[in-house]
Amino acid sequence: MPSGTESDETTDAADGRRPRLTPPIADVRRAVRAVLPADGLVLVALSGGPDSLALAAAAAFEAPRAGLRAGAVIVDHGLQPGSAEVAARAAEQARALGLDPVLVTRVEVTGEGGPESSARRARYAALDEAARSTDAACVLLGHTLDDQAETVLLGLARGSGAASLAGMPARAGRYVRPLLGIRRATTVQACADAGLEPWTDPHNADPSYARVRVRERVLPVLEAELGPGIAEALVRTAEQLREDDDAFEAQIDELIEEICEPAEAGIAISVGALAANPAALRQRIIRHVVGSEFGVSLSRVQTLDVARLVTDWHGQGPLELPDGVRVTRAGRHLVFSTTGSTEVLPHDH
Amino acid sequence: MPSGTESDETTDAADGRRPRLTPPIADVRRAVRAVLPADGLVLVALSGGPDSLALAAAAAFEAPRAGLRAGAVIVDHGLQPGSAEVAARAAEQARALGLDPVLVTRVEVTGEGGPESSARRARYAALDEAARSTDAACVLLGHTLDDQAETVLLGLARGSGAASLAGMPARAGRYVRPLLGIRRATTVQACADAGLEPWTDPHNADPSYARVRVRERVLPVLEAELGPGIAEALVRTAEQLREDDDAFEAQIDELIEEICEPAEAGIAISVGALAANPAALRQRIIRHVVGSEFGVSLSRVQTLDVARLVTDWHGQGPLELPDGVRVTRAGRHLVFSTTGSTEVLPHDH
Repeated sequence: MPSGTESDETTDAADGRRPRLTPPIADVRRAVRAVLPADGLVLVALSGGPDSLALAAAAAFEAPRAGLRAGAVIVDHGLQPGSAEVAARAAEQARALGLDPVLVTRVEVTGEGGPESSARRARYAALDEAARSTDAACVLLGHTLDDQAETVLLGLARGSGAASLAGMPARAGRYVRPLLGIRRATTVQACADAGLEPWTDPHNADPSYARVRVRERVLPVLEAELGPGIAEALVRTAEQLREDDDAFEAQIDELIEEICEPAEAGIAISVGALAANPAALRQRIIRHVVGSEFGVSLSRVQTLDVARLVTDWHGQGPLELPDGVRVTRAGRHLVFSTTGSTEVLPHDH
Repeated sequence: MPSGTESDETTDAADGRRPRLTPPIADVRRAVRAVLPADGLVLVALSGGPDSLALAAAAAFEAPRAGLRAGAVIVDHGLQPGSAEVAARAAEQARALGLDPVLVTRVEVTGEGGPESSARRARYAALDEAARSTDAACVLLGHTLDDQAETVLLGLARGSGAASLAGMPARAGRYVRPLLGIRRATTVQACADAGLEPWTDPHNADPSYARVRVRERVLPVLEAELGPGIAEALVRTAEQLREDDDAFEAQIDELIEEICEPAEAGIAISVGALAANPAALRQRIIRHVVGSEFGVSLSRVQTLDVARLVTDWHGQGPLELPDGVRVTRAGRHLVFSTTGSTEVLPHDH
């Protein structure tokens, strides 16, 4: 039987044995401990997979010792046969760990976008609702260092700069990801050490998902050819690019009021201010204004076209952007507008 | 025989036939045309491989039409048996293309760092010298989109943020890389179309080089699993991250004078200024100061340790950085200094 500082273990193994405090269990607990709020309820988003199950076990151990309550929310996406049983089993594991309350929410995955983004949208809506209904201080998500590395590689394939390489934030509103510094293998081992049997999502082996191909085929090749530290290097990169992107966002927030003014059916930006800023900021300001004013996300090529009305001005005419947005250089301003009533041409049918 | 705008072709094929103006030849020429200086001599760095040979052919065609002279410089690294013959053959091809002057420089590859970085250092020293002696307006380098994508992936494996992912600049001083938007396959085809026979560097197939492994094993897997646009996406990312890094550098240049002041045996930075800036800038300022003042390059972990003297101050003692650099928080300043005479402890052997 273990002794020492952690000898007051709860009986969190399924069979009632007290788990040894192994290094993987200690790593996951330490990561959870570092993000606990000052008070209130900590809700773990539990799928039943090894990452979130190890997270749930760590939260069940750490929260009471910090004077907090820990609960779990299990989202049943209803996408696979037997998903209700998977959810019920995860709920049972959560209760055995001492988590309370344990919520199971069945969601309807529908709507626009691919099946992955629909499922994500439905999942976060359910998590939001669970957090609201329980008045949770935070929701812990089980994403690991491996998930983050995969996210960076998927962003790399999009090629849209720091924002797409910045990966998932460690904190965003009430959502917290304590395991971004922990390898997936550690969570698997932590479950095994605690006598917990995680669920294996068959989607995780389905190569029709780009993420699965990155995990199974891309990362192993990168590790073999460029060295075993590649996943950690990707995560370090993500951290720094997120800081970079945050810094630019903060600078834009400071600038935007003073360099923009309303214009007829749109908004105008000062050409002088755009010219005075370096390219990285100039282009972000353009994207920001078009995004926030018209809900249009400009590509890099479109953004550079707009920027040339500042940096390479020789009397060009207006540029047509997506969704009927038009940008015109008018004296010392770039004026972005929608025609609103897009001109209807006469036709024959 | 071709007709039209480019019917006044020079006889730049080795056998005297006029080459057809194929799309690959046109692409390489267009890329060269876009970077030609206003006047003077354009020097092509020629290895004899397909990239630089296609570049040389394009420069030989375009420069005279823009009222410029074009020459070539061939660096013989002396690292492979027969390297002198390879250099002589490239020089002959350059002369046949009409380039003048054609310089061949033999260098001694020695010194610190791996064989790749020693060779690179010797090569750029020779190119610098050739540019000086011929008073060249610019030196054209044959790096392609593929080289850039490989550079980004190698930087990703280092995991040190935007600076290491920014790839090679399109312009740096007198060096210009006109082919960063052109695929390697295009230069190979341009040579074939022009009847030029490039040299094949055996090093390019040697998997002991990380770059060769990236080219032969990593990029093909990325293309297969994430889609054929991956090399272009990597280059687009590099472009944006270079802009980001340039913007931060410009901001630091503006800030640095007003937030730093000399201190005994070192330099002091205002804690208030560091605190007021976002993390991305704060950390770059710290790295910049330690780099420019002491020639020490801080790792991310070291940089974050220093930053905590600002962001998480609770009376910590001085931090020891590499090469005897020490940082101490003294009131409203971080003071960086070297002890100079590092303390020698008595020992027994």
